Amino acid sequence: AEVDEMKALKEQLGKDKKSGSGFQLKTPKGTVDHRPEATLLRKKIFHTLESIFVKYGASTIDTPVFELREILAGKYGEDSKLIYDLQDQGGELCSLRYDLTVPFARYLAMNGITSMKRYHIGKVYRRDQPVVTKGRMREFFQCDFDIAGVYDSMVPDAEVLSFLCDALTALDIGEFTVKMNHRKILDGIFELAGVPQDKTRSISSAVDKLDKMSWADVRKEMTVDKGLDPVIADKIGEYVGLKGPGWDVLKKLEADEKLMGIESAKAGLADMRLLFEYLEVFGVLDKMSFDMSLARGLDYYTGLIYEAITEFSAPPSARPTPSVPAPDAMTSSTPTSLPAKADKKAKSSDKDKAKTEDDAVDEASVGVGSIAAGGRYDNLVGMFAEAAGQKRDQVPCVGISIGVERVYSIMEMRRKNREEKIRGKETDVYVLALGGGLLKERMAFAKMLRDNGIKTEFMYKAKPKAPAQWKAADDDHVPIVAILAPAELESGTVRIKQQVGKDAAGEENKGVEVKVEEAVAYIKQRL
Amino acid sequence: AEVDEMKALKEQLGKDKKSGSGFQLKTPKGTVDHRPEATLLRKKIFHTLESIFVKYGASTIDTPVFELREILAGKYGEDSKLIYDLQDQGGELCSLRYDLTVPFARYLAMNGITSMKRYHIGKVYRRDQPVVTKGRMREFFQCDFDIAGVYDSMVPDAEVLSFLCDALTALDIGEFTVKMNHRKILDGIFELAGVPQDKTRSISSAVDKLDKMSWADVRKEMTVDKGLDPVIADKIGEYVGLKGPGWDVLKKLEADEKLMGIESAKAGLADMRLLFEYLEVFGVLDKMSFDMSLARGLDYYTGLIYEAITEFSAPPSARPTPSVPAPDAMTSSTPTSLPAKADKKAKSSDKDKAKTEDDAVDEASVGVGSIAAGGRYDNLVGMFAEAAGQKRDQVPCVGISIGVERVYSIMEMRRKNREEKIRGKETDVYVLALGGGLLKERMAFAKMLRDNGIKTEFMYKAKPKAPAQWKAADDDHVPIVAILAPAELESGTVRIKQQVGKDAAGEENKGVEVKVEEAVAYIKQRL
Repeated sequence: AEVDEMKALKEQLGKDKKSGSGFQLKTPKGTVDHRPEATLLRKKIFHTLESIFVKYGASTIDTPVFELREILAGKYGEDSKLIYDLQDQGGELCSLRYDLTVPFARYLAMNGITSMKRYHIGKVYRRDQPVVTKGRMREFFQCDFDIAGVYDSMVPDAEVLSFLCDALTALDIGEFTVKMNHRKILDGIFELAGVPQDKTRSISSAVDKLDKMSWADVRKEMTVDKGLDPVIADKIGEYVGLKGPGWDVLKKLEADEKLMGIESAKAGLADMRLLFEYLEVFGVLDKMSFDMSLARGLDYYTGLIYEAITEFSAPPSARPTPSVPAPDAMTSSTPTSLPAKADKKAKSSDKDKAKTEDDAVDEASVGVGSIAAGGRYDNLVGMFAEAAGQKRDQVPCVGISIGVERVYSIMEMRRKNREEKIRGKETDVYVLALGGGLLKERMAFAKMLRDNGIKTEFMYKAKPKAPAQWKAADDDHVPIVAILAPAELESGTVRIKQQVGKDAAGEENKGVEVKVEEAVAYIKQRL
Repeated sequence: AEVDEMKALKEQLGKDKKSGSGFQLKTPKGTVDHRPEATLLRKKIFHTLESIFVKYGASTIDTPVFELREILAGKYGEDSKLIYDLQDQGGELCSLRYDLTVPFARYLAMNGITSMKRYHIGKVYRRDQPVVTKGRMREFFQCDFDIAGVYDSMVPDAEVLSFLCDALTALDIGEFTVKMNHRKILDGIFELAGVPQDKTRSISSAVDKLDKMSWADVRKEMTVDKGLDPVIADKIGEYVGLKGPGWDVLKKLEADEKLMGIESAKAGLADMRLLFEYLEVFGVLDKMSFDMSLARGLDYYTGLIYEAITEFSAPPSARPTPSVPAPDAMTSSTPTSLPAKADKKAKSSDKDKAKTEDDAVDEASVGVGSIAAGGRYDNLVGMFAEAAGQKRDQVPCVGISIGVERVYSIMEMRRKNREEKIRGKETDVYVLALGGGLLKERMAFAKMLRDNGIKTEFMYKAKPKAPAQWKAADDDHVPIVAILAPAELESGTVRIKQQVGKDAAGEENKGVEVKVEEAVAYIKQRL
């Protein structure tokens, strides 16, 4: 029987304990239990985001937490080593999902869906080196919004960015800026500078480090580590320091005849022009910074790329003012005069850690890092369809992934700063008895309140002591207590006492005597 | 680079395809993607349940989807073989959670928490033989509510049952009955009948099959398969046919002097008496059936056990009337006259399948089976604490697990029967242009509606065709369309047309011309 098994287990474990290899009550490395307060705050974040997803007409899907191993294979480059595999217990080989994007692309290809707006909130899994104190976990939530379908240029892209601004505004995480760039413009710059075709990706990934390394260091990586001609590096440097308000940067680049002579750069700049027009209509262009140093890690992006940062993206020491500076005024510095960024001085404390998709900023040293990131990926769905031997047109996609854990960290910090009470549950009324226990009376009263939608608790004891009941109500910050006493019940009344708010007047406040049948209305007025 | 990797992968897979072992676009065995309509209905179920959890003062936690393997070891008897293990990739050995109860007990023991009301909605994993058409999956949602703590007898138990009745009432799944029994009474009956100590659990598990097997078959299992003396089996048979309204069955058992002479039976009956008093206060006693044939599979139960069934728990063929029969009138039949139950004739189609915790009724043959089940388990938390070498008092628990997938099946069926439209998203307004494309005008109008909380979509094309826009609105059953046309915009108006509802008057209905600045108010009145 199971009980016997458990006893045997217990003995066995007891022995292990004595011999030094004790049974450990813990969660697996890189995972945590979310306590009630934390779970509730996360739920509020999800609720806020969902209310905006649906305003944009997005629907949601739920895919399995594990996928066939071959679905994930070859999608994450060297980060594939971070994928959790399930043990081969007979049958198919499976792995835990690494993000929500690949399952979405698989879903579209598998079902032959050619257009969809979908959001998905779910946990993803990465066997990365966890930094629990910094919020880098092996199990964490992602919250994705993607638009798939063949549409006119930059319209869905503008929708995603409008959504992003609405979402970050609603989340109450302070000021934010969306850095944006275009893969085709970057490609054009590399072509103009003369980067050899086979070095494009590695040089692009060096550029992407400009938000946490100085140009000198990046240049060194390009020339020394990656063998790029210093002349070419300097040519790149002329461009990647460029950032600022959209129209300003765009006009400067459009005036650059050499660059406009490169086909891909020209196409990328035309995209940006259209995008800025649409973002003006949506009233969010002032949140954008056209930033030539943004390159993004993932290789599957094919067009527009973006990343949102907040005032809390920088570490406290590097934050001079409580509000984020507006996107830097337009700069076209040469490499040597590239202005020092607030977060650039911070040194990566664990440089050899594997860089993960939405981890473009190393949060161990520079605050929470970017809080959302994404871009256009036009080929991923088609690759699935083709790999499965289906002939089908491409399904172009554009999407955004919001870093829920980082949003959580910021909201948590802001709540603490405002000294807001954080409740793990939101009970409205605690029903207590002074004298006589009155268990069934408390039950009946609680039932009446609950039947009227009031969140109500009472102590599960036949004759609870008064101090224990008061303590239970206080511990959970319950705003109202209902006091049942034999004499008052006799005359059909209860005492309602507000614990917080303007009518809560210290310990002398004995509450107000209210008829039992009027208690619901009386309480509802005070909630 | 990754793109190259993917190209290589594609080629490789293309080759495999040709050689017959093609790349398959599918989800792992026993898992499914939940499409938007299904995801939305599940979210509504969760939302309904959560609104009731909080009325009972429950808070929620979120634990990792995998646990250290040793945490799960020895908790599920022979069903342990159904646990998914993660591959050993270096580091700790982990397994996917099998239920939400063991992680809760681990959480309490690990954090030294001695009292808590918690609910948890999450997916659990079992490598069982899936029966997709019947809803038995390898990945499925559980929704648990548990009360932990040292309280007075049967008070938390009554709360859990009151919650259960509130929840099933709110879920709109038709009539339901809660079958209940007490492990101590069952133990007393076995003691009285003379069941040898070492056969108690296996005989108990035979009794538990009475809801899908005849007494003759169960008796045969006891005597032939499990070697029980037929005289003892018949003695058990005198009791396990007993069921009916709580007070009736209780009084009959209390009048049984032999049974009352058995200590554990007497204690169990005292518990039931108290419970019925409390359930009367909560107004839910009429939903209960005291059923001596209920034994429940899991060994860790130590007191009260219960299971909720609905009219849809039986298969359609065995359902004589559209409404569930009230709990059978009290019967005290001898084994041979045990009344045939509605679902008893149905034969298990795959008897050798492993029986899982909340799978007491085989849903492959008898409808959706029980839709909720639980009981009291007073020793599980203490076992964890002790196993970890901590000295600590027991933390008694009582809880319920709601079978979300079965609730979903019933709600889905009822919606279909009522011919309710099921929408994958709930867009309020589709903004379309008749003539001229008007992309920026549609964007601006959509933004205005969204800023006022109205869920709005438009087509992501510069010059969409009229039929394509109407089709998009119709496909998603969007209730209102806003029609933008050059001439009307010129004069500051749009046309608002209701697609459904009392003002939707066929194709001739051209909608109502409304000033742009009054459109929000006009639309809000009609949503």
